Amino acid sequence: VSDLGEHALIERITARLSLPPWVIVGPGDDAAVLEPVRGALDVLTTDAQVEGIHFDRRFVPADAIGHRALAVNLSDLAAMGAEPRAVLLSLMLPGALAVSDVDGILDGLLALAAEHRVAVIGGNITRSPGPLIVDVTATGVVGRRRALTRSGARPGDEVYVTGSLGNGLAGLRALQAQTAADGPHVSHYLRPAPRVRAGLMLSRNRAASACMDLSDGLADAARQIAAASSVRMVIDAAALPIGPEARGWFETHGQNPALAAAAGGDDYELLFTVRPSQRGRFRGALRLMRDLPITRIGSVAKGTGVVLRGPDGERPMPAGFEHFADGTAD
Amino acid sequence: VSDLGEHALIERITARLSLPPWVIVGPGDDAAVLEPVRGALDVLTTDAQVEGIHFDRRFVPADAIGHRALAVNLSDLAAMGAEPRAVLLSLMLPGALAVSDVDGILDGLLALAAEHRVAVIGGNITRSPGPLIVDVTATGVVGRRRALTRSGARPGDEVYVTGSLGNGLAGLRALQAQTAADGPHVSHYLRPAPRVRAGLMLSRNRAASACMDLSDGLADAARQIAAASSVRMVIDAAALPIGPEARGWFETHGQNPALAAAAGGDDYELLFTVRPSQRGRFRGALRLMRDLPITRIGSVAKGTGVVLRGPDGERPMPAGFEHFADGTAD
Repeated sequence: VSDLGEHALIERITARLSLPPWVIVGPGDDAAVLEPVRGALDVLTTDAQVEGIHFDRRFVPADAIGHRALAVNLSDLAAMGAEPRAVLLSLMLPGALAVSDVDGILDGLLALAAEHRVAVIGGNITRSPGPLIVDVTATGVVGRRRALTRSGARPGDEVYVTGSLGNGLAGLRALQAQTAADGPHVSHYLRPAPRVRAGLMLSRNRAASACMDLSDGLADAARQIAAASSVRMVIDAAALPIGPEARGWFETHGQNPALAAAAGGDDYELLFTVRPSQRGRFRGALRLMRDLPITRIGSVAKGTGVVLRGPDGERPMPAGFEHFADGTAD
Repeated sequence: VSDLGEHALIERITARLSLPPWVIVGPGDDAAVLEPVRGALDVLTTDAQVEGIHFDRRFVPADAIGHRALAVNLSDLAAMGAEPRAVLLSLMLPGALAVSDVDGILDGLLALAAEHRVAVIGGNITRSPGPLIVDVTATGVVGRRRALTRSGARPGDEVYVTGSLGNGLAGLRALQAQTAADGPHVSHYLRPAPRVRAGLMLSRNRAASACMDLSDGLADAARQIAAASSVRMVIDAAALPIGPEARGWFETHGQNPALAAAAGGDDYELLFTVRPSQRGRFRGALRLMRDLPITRIGSVAKGTGVVLRGPDGERPMPAGFEHFADGTAD
């Protein structure tokens, strides 16, 4: 992109944006100005996709990089029960990057933004002397006392997860191995669907006591909710909704599917807890989630930590991974 | 920092934060939740500091990296007339970076945040396979119909600038040359003071018709206001408030001080226009800006483009630099 100047590149991007009427000042000024939503709280999150850490350009196409950069942020908003509104896009571009790759990143990001009615209201573009980086800040709104935090789980609550597990890890491994780089697990890895509607329905119906997304895996999310809520979480290994292609991949490669799916990241599903007294509202929310499968996978007890209950008894939940310690996956 | 895990590093940072009561959910959940300000509009901006593009670790200490990463964003809010409230911090850290450098970045960022009563409400931390990057998103508030945009200048308006010019460029060049790496120009480059109060006073008093910050230099800012407002801007070279140390540096190195100061970036002053009918309100705002010098440097006319008027007549404003085309400075 070094043959195109910064201003020309910004114009190329802003020409593709359409702005809703509540954007008072959009891209092209020092900052963006938004009309707030009456009676709602503001929700803000930021997450970066870094080449060589979160994606590998040899097998992640440009549009998937853009899709993922937005999806991980929408997943964070979903986990708070927030309705996404707007994003700021911070692009750090290597000089040798093709302009068509920038267009591709925008293609993927803007398609997902349109699907969720999210406005790109501003951002920043700079050269990178190293990796390609797409850093997105997303803002949304949530009703007062409706935010889904991690600290509300109590003994006796039931534990649920949306969608299916293991696809993120199995999809990544399939792409890395360059075998069968196709199928639902690969699609899940490349273009995850953030569970925005599920988060909104849980929040608006006050149907969950705690919620978190699985960006760092089920094991990590369960551990974080258990710690923030000062409870013990018991997960039933046999109940985990492991995707068929993911299960096949794990079994073919000699891995225990439940352990692999629990430890793997990049799934972007929601893990949440439901109080017995919330069951009626939860059933109401379920009806509004359309075709999304929701699976009960465990329960909350007194104590601390997370255990995986299998046919051979209980064992501690395997360690998830931290982005920092393990650079090979998200 | 590779010996410290991601969670440990996040805990190390969040332990240093103090949060105002309008932060409903702070760091440690999927996203931050804020109580909005009644009757105000939300203002959002993002800007990254990338090692090798915006700073050189050989002569920019860690605390200055943190200071600058926040200052460039506060400067953008100031240029909109917004009051800063909160920031999200996105850190991309090379594995070989010392933990003391992370602490230093936080030192500089948090000291400036405290000075402006800005809360760090969340963020994200990841490894970088290449450069150190500090990407900040800042949010603030501005009264309805009080935002200072770039498009409001009209023929007959007067043109003003805050503070002094040329220090950013002269300070950078002095540091690069490793000579006299001290003095006001060097301090200005390393730890610029964003003109938050000046922007607020101009906005609240409705004392400016257009405003922009000088992060990419006076030439660039004048050109952008002229283009967005569809006017011609005439800048008086003799009136430019060039800092004495910057002037000395330019003269010693055979550069025309006015041209160098106009083209150079990293000054983070405000360029703004005042309608003749606003003069009374402008004088009121001036009294509230305390010791900050404000200099009239030109006027707005019919037409397009920007000219620099000197003793030899008018000449086109020199090109500023774009981050993208010129990687040697900010």
